[in-house]
Amino acid sequence: MSAIRHALNTKREDDFAAWYQEVISAADMAEESGVRGCMVIKPWGYGIWERMQRLLDDRIKAAGVQNAYFPLFIPLKNFEREAEHVDGFAKEMAVVTHHRLIADGEGGLIPDPEAKLEEPLVVRPTSETIIGDAMSRWIQSWRDLPLRLNQWANVVRWEMRTRMFLRTSEFLWQEGHSAHASAEEAQAETMTALEMYRAFAEEDVAIPVIAGEKPENERFPGAVETWSIEAMMQDGKALQAGTSHYLGTNFAHAANIKYQNDAGREVLCHTVSWGVSTRMVGGLIMVHGDDDGLRVPPALAPFQVVILPMLRDKPEDEALLDYCEGLRAAIAGQTALGEPARVLLDKRPGKAAAKRWDWVRKGAPVIIEVGGRDMENGVVSLLRRDALWNTETGKPAFQNPERDLCAQSIPGVLADMQNGMLVAARERREANIRRDISDMDALAEHFSREAKYPGWVEVQWAKPTGDALAKVVETLKELRLTLRNVPMHAPPADGTCIFTGEPAVERVYVARAY
Amino acid sequence: MSAIRHALNTKREDDFAAWYQEVISAADMAEESGVRGCMVIKPWGYGIWERMQRLLDDRIKAAGVQNAYFPLFIPLKNFEREAEHVDGFAKEMAVVTHHRLIADGEGGLIPDPEAKLEEPLVVRPTSETIIGDAMSRWIQSWRDLPLRLNQWANVVRWEMRTRMFLRTSEFLWQEGHSAHASAEEAQAETMTALEMYRAFAEEDVAIPVIAGEKPENERFPGAVETWSIEAMMQDGKALQAGTSHYLGTNFAHAANIKYQNDAGREVLCHTVSWGVSTRMVGGLIMVHGDDDGLRVPPALAPFQVVILPMLRDKPEDEALLDYCEGLRAAIAGQTALGEPARVLLDKRPGKAAAKRWDWVRKGAPVIIEVGGRDMENGVVSLLRRDALWNTETGKPAFQNPERDLCAQSIPGVLADMQNGMLVAARERREANIRRDISDMDALAEHFSREAKYPGWVEVQWAKPTGDALAKVVETLKELRLTLRNVPMHAPPADGTCIFTGEPAVERVYVARAY
Ligand SMILES: [Zn+2]
Ligand SMILES: [Zn+2]
Repeated sequence: MSAIRHALNTKREDDFAAWYQEVISAADMAEESGVRGCMVIKPWGYGIWERMQRLLDDRIKAAGVQNAYFPLFIPLKNFEREAEHVDGFAKEMAVVTHHRLIADGEGGLIPDPEAKLEEPLVVRPTSETIIGDAMSRWIQSWRDLPLRLNQWANVVRWEMRTRMFLRTSEFLWQEGHSAHASAEEAQAETMTALEMYRAFAEEDVAIPVIAGEKPENERFPGAVETWSIEAMMQDGKALQAGTSHYLGTNFAHAANIKYQNDAGREVLCHTVSWGVSTRMVGGLIMVHGDDDGLRVPPALAPFQVVILPMLRDKPEDEALLDYCEGLRAAIAGQTALGEPARVLLDKRPGKAAAKRWDWVRKGAPVIIEVGGRDMENGVVSLLRRDALWNTETGKPAFQNPERDLCAQSIPGVLADMQNGMLVAARERREANIRRDISDMDALAEHFSREAKYPGWVEVQWAKPTGDALAKVVETLKELRLTLRNVPMHAPPADGTCIFTGEPAVERVYVARAY
Repeated sequence: MSAIRHALNTKREDDFAAWYQEVISAADMAEESGVRGCMVIKPWGYGIWERMQRLLDDRIKAAGVQNAYFPLFIPLKNFEREAEHVDGFAKEMAVVTHHRLIADGEGGLIPDPEAKLEEPLVVRPTSETIIGDAMSRWIQSWRDLPLRLNQWANVVRWEMRTRMFLRTSEFLWQEGHSAHASAEEAQAETMTALEMYRAFAEEDVAIPVIAGEKPENERFPGAVETWSIEAMMQDGKALQAGTSHYLGTNFAHAANIKYQNDAGREVLCHTVSWGVSTRMVGGLIMVHGDDDGLRVPPALAPFQVVILPMLRDKPEDEALLDYCEGLRAAIAGQTALGEPARVLLDKRPGKAAAKRWDWVRKGAPVIIEVGGRDMENGVVSLLRRDALWNTETGKPAFQNPERDLCAQSIPGVLADMQNGMLVAARERREANIRRDISDMDALAEHFSREAKYPGWVEVQWAKPTGDALAKVVETLKELRLTLRNVPMHAPPADGTCIFTGEPAVERVYVARAY
């Protein structure tokens, strides 16, 4: 075995946080904008988000939910009537107070004092209240129900400490909002959205997730139930990758969302909301990245195959480009993962080897290099991003299929890679979940041991509420731990509560988290 | 001939502005939000915008331009260094001054005085300056050029008088921005974007447009050249439906976008920007709508075919739904305009006739009603939105094809309708352009005559600049007229300038405008 010289400077095991930043930079995904807490999403990062949007939107449309668009600005009064919101996450918000700039007479600009808004406007941190306003106008009778809407939008929550994709002041997301005639229907919708997220995370992003209910202390303010999908990152921490909230009639009460039932009586609707954001891109990096950079699941790769002709600024280049163009067209004619294969013939100036490492760091699933000798032999040099190294030689593990066979093999290679990434991530997660810890000393011991990445622990508990729960949360906080969720498909409890010693009623995940 | 009872209350010829508002409301496209100048785009309106996005984005990607995302907030200093912008459109902007709300002690909320931003932030009215910042970081050498980016985003320009889709404080758009090594390349890019817009407007939106250069007085502030596509609405007014700007080195100078050329010298880039917005939806309404509501070109229709089963709350309903589902599946299996046909089986409660008129007002291209007798006969009742009325009977012009033939005919019907809408709009436009007016008296006469919709006049002019141009603009303004653009493909001038009497150098359109 020879030593491999990896493409990044930082290894995951040496400094996971620094590695994360290096991947984002090396894969050219995003950068700080200079505007506090806001990032610029560069083409490769945005292209991945666009693919996420496309695939999740297909699922949203298939579920019969309709997209719409609501205003960026929300009047103060919407937050006033919703005191819960303000106690919750929504204190830190961008507030618009003026609608004009004027010169200050010294070469600068100031908000025009003459153009002060009578009522300040808030840049939406989420759209429950303004969509609730619309629902209260649009819904009259049971015939108007269910009303199922989704919005793709930017939202702003002023953040003091930010981390690209994971926590930024402005971020991109979708927010689903629906109103229903009964609690049962609304709860079913909450589950429909959760299952949509599970399928999206696992089938499209190749991230295995645990779907379950958040404990009371982790509920969205005003929600009756909050459900989440939780993913394990390679450092063993949890990332909440999507949430679905059953809001009961709380928001309907605040926004006056009522319908006339078939007995002619006015009653409150039951509402639901659900969201997934650019945070998922951060999750993708932390689940699939390696010491050579990003690895993009083929379903999400803006380009699934990149062809690099080894040009030499000589007359033979033309024949080589023809040969590569033939390959490109043959691959573009293939259907991979249900869509036309996305292939780029990268003719930019620069050495093929340097460009190879650029694409390795970006995580393009398949890189194909073609030199003069390949052309003579009718073959290509193919590199799979999920099997990059020949560990015997310490060199990139090139394969040399015939050109035409190569094109035909692409759909199979991509499907295999998509599935393989999910399977590998699931195996890693399962290897890092402990289910045999049943007392607090052992739990503390487990999370204090030398190993950097202690993963998750599934414990049994009595589902305490109120003050009893607050005490549990406090105890966990001292260990830098949080309750993640109560998994949907776990076996019934059969032990005692790790926190209280009472008979346990269910299982719950405990982990460090982003 | 019998009198037709149209589906709208207002006819175009009676009150075009009121008709426009009624279409938006009757087709359930959008509504006022209660937030000053911002609208809610409802599912049918947003669905049309999503289709526009999809088709234009396909063209953008095919042109090799990459999507990215830049911050919503722009620092004041970006506007300070760009005095031109501030003199231009950008004075009226939403200004964020605080990042927190607190209770005022009387049940209300106020911006927290402790959380005042050191430097206010502006909600982007356009992103030239912040994308320019990024370009100045990303471009070092000629190898980095051209840099061709596009962003889909919401932007805000505070408007006092608003009109849905045409002028709103917040609107949705795409903005393309590119940097080039030479003026020639940048000018070629300006034309590439313009041609992309022309093809999009004509082939996808079925709106014929005149592509040409805006006169000096209509240039984007800071641009060397501004080009536009101009569309004629049914009231004869012009709508600027897309613009492409060659910015010379003006923005590069302000944002310090430089590159090292192959001789090793640092030189300024030439930049280009181009944009199309939700305004195009307003144009679609005013070009294609009729006295029965909206008509959506099939390429843009969220549903191209809507099937309405005539349910009667009886056991036979089930067989009817099966029959309709068979039709739905057969249509969904067809390829129309290069994509799978989009078909809805509308099973919502309500009478089929009421639902028919809903879909007529929404402008679904094909409506298919199916009753018990249709089923017995193996046929369906099909209504084309572009041939709605039998003018002999004054009744809807239903056709009764066999069910299976109907499904097979859909691709042809939709393609025919898409083309027919463009042809009809072009014929109407050409019938409303005068090219034979060569003196100011005749021009004033033409625009003061009884006819409500005088259309456009193509005149010849000497292309005055500076004060001479200002005088022309002033004269036209008194007639409520504007200069639109200098068409690209017009015959050379052969007369005298209508404004100055000098020899003409080119042709220019004069019209009332939105
Ligand atoms: Zn609330
Ligand atoms: Zn400027």
